[in-house]
Amino acid sequence: MNPSNRRPSTQSSANSQLVEQEERRADIGFGTKITDSHSRLVNKDGTFNIVRVNGTLWDRLNIYNRLIVMGWVPFFSWLLTGYLLANTLFAGIYMLAGSDTLIGVDDRVLNGPFWKCFFFSSQTLTTVGYGHISPNSFLTSCIAAFESMLGLLAFALATGLLYARFSRPIAHTRFSKNAVMAPYLDVNGWMFRIINTRDNQLINLQVSVSLSRIEPKSQSDSTLTRKYYGLSLERNKVNFFPTNWTLVHPITSESPLFGCTPQDLEASDAEFLVSIQATDDTFAQAVHTRYSYRYDEILWGYKFQPMFDGTQTSTVTLDLDRLDDVVEAELN
Amino acid sequence: MNPSNRRPSTQSSANSQLVEQEERRADIGFGTKITDSHSRLVNKDGTFNIVRVNGTLWDRLNIYNRLIVMGWVPFFSWLLTGYLLANTLFAGIYMLAGSDTLIGVDDRVLNGPFWKCFFFSSQTLTTVGYGHISPNSFLTSCIAAFESMLGLLAFALATGLLYARFSRPIAHTRFSKNAVMAPYLDVNGWMFRIINTRDNQLINLQVSVSLSRIEPKSQSDSTLTRKYYGLSLERNKVNFFPTNWTLVHPITSESPLFGCTPQDLEASDAEFLVSIQATDDTFAQAVHTRYSYRYDEILWGYKFQPMFDGTQTSTVTLDLDRLDDVVEAELN
Amino acid sequence: MNPSNRRPSTQSSANSQLVEQEERRADIGFGTKITDSHSRLVNKDGTFNIVRVNGTLWDRLNIYNRLIVMGWVPFFSWLLTGYLLANTLFAGIYMLAGSDTLIGVDDRVLNGPFWKCFFFSSQTLTTVGYGHISPNSFLTSCIAAFESMLGLLAFALATGLLYARFSRPIAHTRFSKNAVMAPYLDVNGWMFRIINTRDNQLINLQVSVSLSRIEPKSQSDSTLTRKYYGLSLERNKVNFFPTNWTLVHPITSESPLFGCTPQDLEASDAEFLVSIQATDDTFAQAVHTRYSYRYDEILWGYKFQPMFDGTQTSTVTLDLDRLDDVVEAELN
Amino acid sequence: MNPSNRRPSTQSSANSQLVEQEERRADIGFGTKITDSHSRLVNKDGTFNIVRVNGTLWDRLNIYNRLIVMGWVPFFSWLLTGYLLANTLFAGIYMLAGSDTLIGVDDRVLNGPFWKCFFFSSQTLTTVGYGHISPNSFLTSCIAAFESMLGLLAFALATGLLYARFSRPIAHTRFSKNAVMAPYLDVNGWMFRIINTRDNQLINLQVSVSLSRIEPKSQSDSTLTRKYYGLSLERNKVNFFPTNWTLVHPITSESPLFGCTPQDLEASDAEFLVSIQATDDTFAQAVHTRYSYRYDEILWGYKFQPMFDGTQTSTVTLDLDRLDDVVEAELN
Repeated sequence: MNPSNRRPSTQSSANSQLVEQEERRADIGFGTKITDSHSRLVNKDGTFNIVRVNGTLWDRLNIYNRLIVMGWVPFFSWLLTGYLLANTLFAGIYMLAGSDTLIGVDDRVLNGPFWKCFFFSSQTLTTVGYGHISPNSFLTSCIAAFESMLGLLAFALATGLLYARFSRPIAHTRFSKNAVMAPYLDVNGWMFRIINTRDNQLINLQVSVSLSRIEPKSQSDSTLTRKYYGLSLERNKVNFFPTNWTLVHPITSESPLFGCTPQDLEASDAEFLVSIQATDDTFAQAVHTRYSYRYDEILWGYKFQPMFDGTQTSTVTLDLDRLDDVVEAELN
Repeated sequence: MNPSNRRPSTQSSANSQLVEQEERRADIGFGTKITDSHSRLVNKDGTFNIVRVNGTLWDRLNIYNRLIVMGWVPFFSWLLTGYLLANTLFAGIYMLAGSDTLIGVDDRVLNGPFWKCFFFSSQTLTTVGYGHISPNSFLTSCIAAFESMLGLLAFALATGLLYARFSRPIAHTRFSKNAVMAPYLDVNGWMFRIINTRDNQLINLQVSVSLSRIEPKSQSDSTLTRKYYGLSLERNKVNFFPTNWTLVHPITSESPLFGCTPQDLEASDAEFLVSIQATDDTFAQAVHTRYSYRYDEILWGYKFQPMFDGTQTSTVTLDLDRLDDVVEAELN
Repeated sequence: MNPSNRRPSTQSSANSQLVEQEERRADIGFGTKITDSHSRLVNKDGTFNIVRVNGTLWDRLNIYNRLIVMGWVPFFSWLLTGYLLANTLFAGIYMLAGSDTLIGVDDRVLNGPFWKCFFFSSQTLTTVGYGHISPNSFLTSCIAAFESMLGLLAFALATGLLYARFSRPIAHTRFSKNAVMAPYLDVNGWMFRIINTRDNQLINLQVSVSLSRIEPKSQSDSTLTRKYYGLSLERNKVNFFPTNWTLVHPITSESPLFGCTPQDLEASDAEFLVSIQATDDTFAQAVHTRYSYRYDEILWGYKFQPMFDGTQTSTVTLDLDRLDDVVEAELN
Repeated sequence: MNPSNRRPSTQSSANSQLVEQEERRADIGFGTKITDSHSRLVNKDGTFNIVRVNGTLWDRLNIYNRLIVMGWVPFFSWLLTGYLLANTLFAGIYMLAGSDTLIGVDDRVLNGPFWKCFFFSSQTLTTVGYGHISPNSFLTSCIAAFESMLGLLAFALATGLLYARFSRPIAHTRFSKNAVMAPYLDVNGWMFRIINTRDNQLINLQVSVSLSRIEPKSQSDSTLTRKYYGLSLERNKVNFFPTNWTLVHPITSESPLFGCTPQDLEASDAEFLVSIQATDDTFAQAVHTRYSYRYDEILWGYKFQPMFDGTQTSTVTLDLDRLDDVVEAELN
């Protein structure tokens, strides 16, 4: 921009070779600047290895999402904690409003007035309302009316959260611990294996695999930059997923892995990013899952063992424990 | 892999005929190894004929999915059982905490202290809380406060489950009991018929049919292997599905069924796998359904009878009972 | 089929002209046999003009769908009726179990024992449980425990239904009462107009229009059959739908309407089937809607009037009442 | 149309140049007539700048959608107001039915009979039902039975609304305050930047940008009309969105912005309409978002600063506060 001339214009070189070249460059969203080899791009649980700072408090708390994603034990711990805190808070308020206006039961059998207020609060919040303790003044009646409404809303929230947690579409897909470099037909192949651990039926699976590695920017410019390559698969789509599925990237001369050694992969901080999309048949919901294999999770010269039980009778039996079973195999 | 030389490389033959051939092979997800002719691939209810072993307990229980998929009678039986068990459990706990601290009613009219505890538990769990029985000690008040919270959560769960069961997108599509091999225009056609049994409107139906059969691996290799063929349909897509729809695979010279006899199908353990995808108009939800016809469910030389009522007045009448009506017809 | 020869084969003429011809025939799902001109295919509310008979009771009731689709007044009437019936039923059961075991209030102030039972039932079913009436026997306690559980489930159901009704994706799209045949550029066009009546934002609208009419089967065969034509639109897709949208099928020589008169349309029982698909932005839900114009709902030689308010200030004003405003216009 | 001749026909000129030209014209749904330069098409919150008049009351209220879209503070204010109003209304009804038939507590401790009725109503509506106040006549029992049912339904509604608000798919995408015109490779580029402010993972992002501006209708016709151009982007799709993403429209000779000055954009009331579609990974839900940049929100001769924290350790740190950081840069 030329500040002295307040009429900048977008008229520059008409057609640009560089623009076309840039448009062809593959990028799956991580950009080219993450070249530090100590970090992986995609964690084992499918999350990304990025930390956000300076977001708003609300964004950082991200309450709904956290309550959905966390495990069942923390979830119920939070619920119980919230319930105890709310009752403690309201017990305090009833104490201030006068615990003697909550009548019907002798304080002493409930360990004093605070606990009477606490239990009254719990009976109000859950709307169980036995009535053996009841508010006997205008003020405590008001508080109780408000608390019971809060109770309803909290209940509503819990309903929604529990339903959302349960109905959340998760692909119960397990990945083999390691990928292998195995002989494949008359060449070699980079392979990994997945199974559906549940009886839910996953249909219309689609898998895409990208290779990410650090390379010099171009033959003339040796600045390190992260590059991405889509890997062609023997088969990237199946209609049904009843058994195990071994995904194979055949290493032909078109493959970016052609001619690579394990040392090459390590030197270039290679990471294989796997992305799976499917439909869970129960609710016809889309499910997505991600995984990644780093260079040090690839077994060179091994192949997967079959997972089917040998004693095949009228039903086919799939042994989930054999997912990671590999055996040495000479590479072509 | 050559263990003595720790530098395996993926450089092998550059271009592979076998790889390209393998990539062209159709596979819908069952693999080639299920060649036992005693089992069908897809059961009549659309599930797959595969048994998983060694999954985790949680995966095997698969509680949410089971509670959604099971029939209404088992569902309500489980609910009732759960309710009775929970109340029995809490009745036991109240007994331990001292049944005499639940006051307000004479034990004897309720068949003794256990049942008093049981009914108090039920009134707490459902939050009905009449209060004619009420906790009169610190300990029982604590238990009741906890139980009423559990009751809320259980309620929340039941709400979610019931809603999920009701709103689950199911294609109420009925398939004709048999497929037929019937004359079709100047050739023959393999046909089956579907109807929507409900007044819900299904739109944008898409049907795909695959033939699965056991064949020698190639002309030179007589190992039996399971092969898959997509069958072209006269029409595989309609926008609306108000009436019945007869799906036709015309047997032209391109068809893998060309020249087949019923004996051929039986010998090759042929199974026709049908997969339907549609949109249920009420909630604009995707619905998926699967079905399969085995060789012994195909009537050779029969055709379907019309399902429309002859007495067509201002509205068109579709008689669902005629879905399976066939009549003999000489094949071309 | 030749029953005397138990080896029918599908080998007939190899390639069929008729098969290819049939595959090219457009059919949107209604089939060719509905040729009775007294019925329309798609009703004004988007339902199909087909009656099913002999379905199962469950399929015919189709309870969930009905409760979702019905208006709010019938919905709440059914809820209230169900509530009253359930209470009457349980009141009867409590009467049989002995109304004198429900203690705490004098029968006479509640118009006798039946009403005492009725109100106790209502307090149990809704879990309000005041406790001024309470069960004082084993049997009535059992019934009350069961009823309160039923109450929870009924509540759960009502929650689900209400949520489903509210959250159901409906395109609040209003169609102009009539389609018009109007001059369009240098030809004529068949046009209709739609608006979004709500402030919800509909995005990615896609419209398809089919013409259905009765014609002789072919030049040689004069049997009447129903044929379908997709009508090309000036524009069948918009990203946003903030204002009104006039859909135009230009009548060029490719149009099946080319050279048609109003009399031709009437004689062939012409019906224009409109199908709209969009995304409701609030929940990113797909919405579908259908409509149809019959030959007698087309105004020949009229065009639509603008719907924008003349006094355009900083905001654009769209007057929904002008949707059907047309004015005469000479056809080209 | 020729009214004297009641047989209008659609036979006019067979093929129309104008029709084909019109079919090629880009329109994203706003039409060509909004040429007033005081209004923007898309507001900053993604809504459209259109006012509807004469809709039905129900359409204008649009209750469900409003309750979903409004902020949390107004939402809870409405809930509380509704609760207080309902209790006031029912308190009035109980007063009419005779406040002395609500027995069990002395009016005076609750500030008189109206408040007794009010608190009884609140205990009924929330189904807390302590029972220290209870209906002691047929009429008040009836009202209470009805009110408790209403309470259940209101609760159901609140549950649904809260769940819908929480689970609503919103892209927490923040747009840079300004777009910039910056040097890009060997040309210039129009750029803006987006980040995902939450840890939710957005996948499969797709962005489209349209330029809308007022131009003469054609070289011969100088009537002002609003025209739309799709802008090609360096990259309009990424699989993952873990960090920031700078969208670039390279200004090559194909660009409608080629040779434009800031003054040109202002004169033609240029507005850049951005539309983003993605999948929120938590629920595999589609999310849509819109934004727009007007000519006066574009900084000419500035470029974006990196958002990554310089002190890159094992995790990559993204500083959300730097989203709008720009620095002067001379244009090519």
